[in-house]
Amino acid sequence: MPNQPAGSGHRAAPVHTDPAEVSVLEALSAVADPVRLQLVRELAGSEDWTRSCGSFDVPVGKAALSHHFSVLRGVGLVEQRDMGAKRVNRLRREEFEARFPGLLHLLLRADDA
Amino acid sequence: MPNQPAGSGHRAAPVHTDPAEVSVLEALSAVADPVRLQLVRELAGSEDWTRSCGSFDVPVGKAALSHHFSVLRGVGLVEQRDMGAKRVNRLRREEFEARFPGLLHLLLRADDA
Repeated sequence: MPNQPAGSGHRAAPVHTDPAEVSVLEALSAVADPVRLQLVRELAGSEDWTRSCGSFDVPVGKAALSHHFSVLRGVGLVEQRDMGAKRVNRLRREEFEARFPGLLHLLLRADDA
Repeated sequence: MPNQPAGSGHRAAPVHTDPAEVSVLEALSAVADPVRLQLVRELAGSEDWTRSCGSFDVPVGKAALSHHFSVLRGVGLVEQRDMGAKRVNRLRREEFEARFPGLLHLLLRADDA
């Protein structure tokens, strides 16, 4: 990358999607996955920006984990920021709820079969 | 099949699942599919038991269509009955809504991106 200051991160900043531009089918496909559902549930139980990607208890490797976060970003459910060497996360509760009322509540409820 | 009366249907009657026994992940996985989403939407616009499986405008073959209906039955979203040579359908609105409040409304709304 030309003109990049020495010492800056070598990763591109994460790209985000506004939930308003996401279809129901895209949103459902993103959350209909056991790993991503677990990521969302763990994230929901944490303060914004306190969880790095490596802090989640999911049984997948680093590349797969990165893909899962990318899918969640892509439907506007997760926002990410690079803080030093870590990429930290928050759940976009209000924006996602405004676009898909009730869906996040369903994902997070504890009475699952 | 022994003791089956002559002239009875040769297909086994469809097996149904109570939505109360379905997990959120199972329900989401069932509806996070373009063909099944279309089946649900078409069915929602029809009177109960008026739509045979062959009457839906979806771009899949007979075996795939049968599989898609089986998935929808398996999460308690569709009920099926054999009437003569036809298998007819209804959407289990109330039961599914009781188990997954708001989800059917999301599936059926027209403001999709």
